Amino acid sequence: MKLVRFLAQDVPAYGIVNGDEVAELEGGFFSPFKTLKACHSLSRVTLLPPCLPSKIVAVGLNYRDHAEELGFAAPDEPIIFLKPPTALLGPDDAVLYPASSSRVDYEAELGVVIKDRVRNIRPDEAGDHILGYTCANDVTARDLQKKDGQWTRAKSFDTFCPAGPWIETDLDPGDLLIESYLNNERKQRSRTSNFIFDVPYLVSFISRIMTLYPGDLVITGTPAGIGPMQPGDSIEVRIEGIGSLKNTVRSAE
Amino acid sequence: MKLVRFLAQDVPAYGIVNGDEVAELEGGFFSPFKTLKACHSLSRVTLLPPCLPSKIVAVGLNYRDHAEELGFAAPDEPIIFLKPPTALLGPDDAVLYPASSSRVDYEAELGVVIKDRVRNIRPDEAGDHILGYTCANDVTARDLQKKDGQWTRAKSFDTFCPAGPWIETDLDPGDLLIESYLNNERKQRSRTSNFIFDVPYLVSFISRIMTLYPGDLVITGTPAGIGPMQPGDSIEVRIEGIGSLKNTVRSAE
Repeated sequence: MKLVRFLAQDVPAYGIVNGDEVAELEGGFFSPFKTLKACHSLSRVTLLPPCLPSKIVAVGLNYRDHAEELGFAAPDEPIIFLKPPTALLGPDDAVLYPASSSRVDYEAELGVVIKDRVRNIRPDEAGDHILGYTCANDVTARDLQKKDGQWTRAKSFDTFCPAGPWIETDLDPGDLLIESYLNNERKQRSRTSNFIFDVPYLVSFISRIMTLYPGDLVITGTPAGIGPMQPGDSIEVRIEGIGSLKNTVRSAE
Repeated sequence: MKLVRFLAQDVPAYGIVNGDEVAELEGGFFSPFKTLKACHSLSRVTLLPPCLPSKIVAVGLNYRDHAEELGFAAPDEPIIFLKPPTALLGPDDAVLYPASSSRVDYEAELGVVIKDRVRNIRPDEAGDHILGYTCANDVTARDLQKKDGQWTRAKSFDTFCPAGPWIETDLDPGDLLIESYLNNERKQRSRTSNFIFDVPYLVSFISRIMTLYPGDLVITGTPAGIGPMQPGDSIEVRIEGIGSLKNTVRSAE
């Protein structure tokens, strides 16, 4: 099942994608819902970020190849950081390149959408608390990341967390092809089987720190091949079994 | 004016403190409100965290003495990080000492509560967008902070952001005495005039990264004198012109 948020006559709505159509829902994803209040053509609606997280928890250095690319040793525990909910961006919208950075990178990531309130769970319990998976882009001002040492500013600008196009609920996240394309040229290509810490481990680890809520988004790290974008570029994240998240880049000025 | 959130017959309510009484409000703080729906004795209500932030933006190393204490050079720009909303804790509630840390520190901080939507403002505009000020404690698992390098995990455990007891709206934040007391013994004592970056500068700086919303909380760094707490301890943050925020510490087990 592909769950989407979209604009129906300028009002945010929830829906299920069936082929080229979106069946609108009565209610959201996190309580029992009924389909078919109305039906829309997928190509005619504007998709929104697929969830409204109270927090976005991100994982650094979770592919062995990316840790090597940055010259870091693989961590023995996940390194987490937070992106603010204001960073969220829908499919088709533009990443805004801030004036304070001169090096803004893409980072293709698998996004995990939390289903219910989660606290202190074991890895083998995590699957029961995951609604599904989406594509995400952990946009990063690389120069500010290096300058600050702390990663927060570099990763927190408005529009620096594109996510979508939908939440795929029927998917095993253990071995998915993940790629990014800058102006249609492939830049990253790996598989989630190269994770240092897998999805159940990550959700369990985070749940022992902070309580997670329905719609919270966990983004799971990026593989090797990161690089800069420029205003005017298009950046696409493709994940096997989910789909394609494509955004443009433009100057924030 | 002292704005509080509290429980009235187990239902969260908004109020104004007048001496020993709380005048309950119709509506919240962020739209026009009327007072005196009901009146309560301050000593008989349970105070809640004074705002419900969509994000908590924290500033590291903002007192010269604390930067020296940690062996860091004073930064030339603010170093920011985020604490999740789930870390928020009300006055009188207990900080939970997590099993994964063996060194949990207090950090007394001035909290700034944002009044409305703020984006890309200058420092001289910041005052118009601040609702008021509160006491905050940026509780930190110091051992995990050192281990991770990134500060997020160390500062993101549930209960690691006590705030309160209320929001003082009529206050100049430029030169306030700030202190912390561990089991009634003074541990930190400084003045906000020792800030490396003052409140208007911080709010402007953050607003150029991420849009702020009503109720968002900015915590502004801690002075020298940080140190560990143990289960059973009491920890108090006192700020001139605001009041006292006192919490206990207990094991999360």
